[in-house]
Amino acid sequence: MKVIDVNCDLGESYGSFKIGNDALVFPFITSCNIACGQHGGDPVTTEQTIQNAIKYGVQVGAHPSYPDLAGFGRRKMQLSADELKSIVKSQIAIIDGLARSYGTKLKYVKPHGALYNSLADDADEAAAFVSAIGAYDNSLAIMGLPHSELEKAARSANINFIKEGFIDRRYQTGGRLQARSEAGAVLENVDDMIQQFEDLVTKRQVKTNSGHMINMQIDSLCIHGDNPKAAALLTALHEKAKKLGVTIQKFDL
Amino acid sequence: MKVIDVNCDLGESYGSFKIGNDALVFPFITSCNIACGQHGGDPVTTEQTIQNAIKYGVQVGAHPSYPDLAGFGRRKMQLSADELKSIVKSQIAIIDGLARSYGTKLKYVKPHGALYNSLADDADEAAAFVSAIGAYDNSLAIMGLPHSELEKAARSANINFIKEGFIDRRYQTGGRLQARSEAGAVLENVDDMIQQFEDLVTKRQVKTNSGHMINMQIDSLCIHGDNPKAAALLTALHEKAKKLGVTIQKFDL
Amino acid sequence: MKVIDVNCDLGESYGSFKIGNDALVFPFITSCNIACGQHGGDPVTTEQTIQNAIKYGVQVGAHPSYPDLAGFGRRKMQLSADELKSIVKSQIAIIDGLARSYGTKLKYVKPHGALYNSLADDADEAAAFVSAIGAYDNSLAIMGLPHSELEKAARSANINFIKEGFIDRRYQTGGRLQARSEAGAVLENVDDMIQQFEDLVTKRQVKTNSGHMINMQIDSLCIHGDNPKAAALLTALHEKAKKLGVTIQKFDL
Amino acid sequence: MKVIDVNCDLGESYGSFKIGNDALVFPFITSCNIACGQHGGDPVTTEQTIQNAIKYGVQVGAHPSYPDLAGFGRRKMQLSADELKSIVKSQIAIIDGLARSYGTKLKYVKPHGALYNSLADDADEAAAFVSAIGAYDNSLAIMGLPHSELEKAARSANINFIKEGFIDRRYQTGGRLQARSEAGAVLENVDDMIQQFEDLVTKRQVKTNSGHMINMQIDSLCIHGDNPKAAALLTALHEKAKKLGVTIQKFDL
Repeated sequence: MKVIDVNCDLGESYGSFKIGNDALVFPFITSCNIACGQHGGDPVTTEQTIQNAIKYGVQVGAHPSYPDLAGFGRRKMQLSADELKSIVKSQIAIIDGLARSYGTKLKYVKPHGALYNSLADDADEAAAFVSAIGAYDNSLAIMGLPHSELEKAARSANINFIKEGFIDRRYQTGGRLQARSEAGAVLENVDDMIQQFEDLVTKRQVKTNSGHMINMQIDSLCIHGDNPKAAALLTALHEKAKKLGVTIQKFDL
Repeated sequence: MKVIDVNCDLGESYGSFKIGNDALVFPFITSCNIACGQHGGDPVTTEQTIQNAIKYGVQVGAHPSYPDLAGFGRRKMQLSADELKSIVKSQIAIIDGLARSYGTKLKYVKPHGALYNSLADDADEAAAFVSAIGAYDNSLAIMGLPHSELEKAARSANINFIKEGFIDRRYQTGGRLQARSEAGAVLENVDDMIQQFEDLVTKRQVKTNSGHMINMQIDSLCIHGDNPKAAALLTALHEKAKKLGVTIQKFDL
Repeated sequence: MKVIDVNCDLGESYGSFKIGNDALVFPFITSCNIACGQHGGDPVTTEQTIQNAIKYGVQVGAHPSYPDLAGFGRRKMQLSADELKSIVKSQIAIIDGLARSYGTKLKYVKPHGALYNSLADDADEAAAFVSAIGAYDNSLAIMGLPHSELEKAARSANINFIKEGFIDRRYQTGGRLQARSEAGAVLENVDDMIQQFEDLVTKRQVKTNSGHMINMQIDSLCIHGDNPKAAALLTALHEKAKKLGVTIQKFDL
Repeated sequence: MKVIDVNCDLGESYGSFKIGNDALVFPFITSCNIACGQHGGDPVTTEQTIQNAIKYGVQVGAHPSYPDLAGFGRRKMQLSADELKSIVKSQIAIIDGLARSYGTKLKYVKPHGALYNSLADDADEAAAFVSAIGAYDNSLAIMGLPHSELEKAARSANINFIKEGFIDRRYQTGGRLQARSEAGAVLENVDDMIQQFEDLVTKRQVKTNSGHMINMQIDSLCIHGDNPKAAALLTALHEKAKKLGVTIQKFDL
């Protein structure tokens, strides 16, 4: 693996409620997952984020969520397939429409929070989600966890799937992420993150919470801007990539 | 005037909260103003409304509002120009994106409720609104009150303006609508509405609350589906149009 | 059983979005479950509902919900125990505070929709819910499904429990309600409802969807105002009660 | 003046969206204005804020707002008197009910943001607001700007009025605050704030944006926890108070 996409969840602020560190992150990433108003992202923020993506040459993705601003989309909601489809499509439409109005194009969709996790394991929900994306625009890619129900559903619907990896989240043996609520689920040390980066891009492996290495092939690496060490991490990441001869560039479909 | 467009505000239900009578209205109209989630319109409703518009050959418009679900968009909000622009654009984007995903096209934008009224008289707000539409897609038309600040702003920005008239609202001398809160502001008798229809399409005039006729040239006639007499009205309207030799068809840009 | 309380979910309208038929129902009931703003119930509606409860001598209950206006509280949400407790307490506080300001008193709490159903079977969630009520004011009663986890949790916390029955919902063998999504789950015939009323109050039994009678002791009977036959039902119910010698009166703690 | 109350707007975070620095501020203040969910303040935050107020011996106030989370309550909304009254009462009820459940008492109400500013100048709105407080509980005090329409309305309704002053906001000649949108409206230098503190508590005067001193008698001083210099300011404020022989203590009704 000589190339890797780096993505970040952006545009999640909501009016006076600021979250993340978008200005810091934009110069270091190649794809951005833009909140669509349901877990974060007021209209002014969404539009500015699209403008910044264009300014920094960053690929535009939509980051739809369960409709739960108070829970930041991190609480599982039981929606009917029809509700889920329409909720996802209307969120995608905001980013798609605004992107078009600025002369760029929505490239992919990455589910957020509890929806992301639920789509990894719930085949029916994954089928509904993929069917919504396909019905909306079947040239869109879906970004998510490798070996997930979402990947299976996307592949069987002939939708491009972008395999995502994390450098600041601890993996479990089966390749799922540890729940945020568990101790140790989020890496806090920059060196550990850079090591995970190296493992992922050079060995195509990742260390689990039981200490073993498992195979993990990824197309895009997620970094988090709300990490207090985001600045240090991003600089270290780019330096490490240089040393390893890895090119950070947009995923190619 | 031999032709007239008939429009209606549709898709305003919100989950279990049903409002209007969309199924009844669709066969009788030629343009529909679809709620965008901020005064009404949940994602399932919005998507179904677009599907119905296509089914009935009805032209698709976006019906953006101040963000005020509890107030149904009928309460004036003081937004900055930047807030208003982004709020309007993100609402348009939902209808535009979903319409495209179904192979049709958003044709026009009609502001809702307090925003509609405010744009009639506030030149700065009208300029911001028009600038948002133009920036989003300058081939979109704007529908609103004739002789309003909105019309002026649209014309000076070379945006097509669709002059709208009402058959169930009482006009004031200057051509503005009487406030809904005032007695007599909403016509309740079908005969009165049909008379107002005839005046508008054959004389290009309308009677005001002081009893005088004023000139009123319109391109599109708004009817309301939540009127309990909507069924009787719509049938009478089409019969009257036939008698008068008036063709009810989509406005032409 | 010579006495029965009759309760109804009221105050669920939200601004221009009207739901239910509160004015019709109030004269016929003895307890009302007032929406707290999270599945329905804007501030004006909530306050008017409390005023009407006082006017009609109807006992005041709070009707808290998962925070999901778009889903009318009918979609299961996975909340942490702490979130659930605070969400329930803040909803109760609105009804309690407003009731006090009008010189009356909140008497009980009945969970709404998906929360009602979830609390019937989820022991942990039921414990959290009961602990919130007890912490808020342990003289409040809880109304819910008999033989549920909620009843168990309430009894073990020494909170008064009001056993609720339904005349327009079909029961399953175990005493749970059939899911609204299933055909036949909601009785539509007034005669069937009156028969279920008679079974519940005179035999202390109810017929299930498999056609068998099961034991079902209840303290309060829920009727629904949004039923198009609500007027006919309520009249028939009061007549039937008279014939059976059953007194409709507030539950007594 | 030998005593002064110090108040702060607290509990304004909303789920994952953190705002302010409540933990830092609590030890230094004597009254807190708790957000009620409409401009900030999710249920968990609200409840924790009440618990902290009790822990630190800080007096509890409610901080109601126009219902506008996206605008943080800083955008003027045109509400009817009935809407405003119910909206305010239901917000007060949350804080009142929760405070009672913890064995403490709501003492006062301070309007937030655009509502605060609007109530200073709009006599009708001020009358509606005061009437809501009086109807809810006429032993509650109202906190607001001296010489405002709100003060007049409160006094004529025999509601206790707490005159509030600011150490980090610039005053205009008439005693109103400069709009936040104007340059210089918010003091950024700690020394300037401490000087304004000294002027207010020892001279009962304040310097305006035109450089003149005007009379300004206040009962409570507002400080802002979201100021990046809040820690330095609060320490300096307490030291200055000591030097001046001013006691920081709860306002006394």
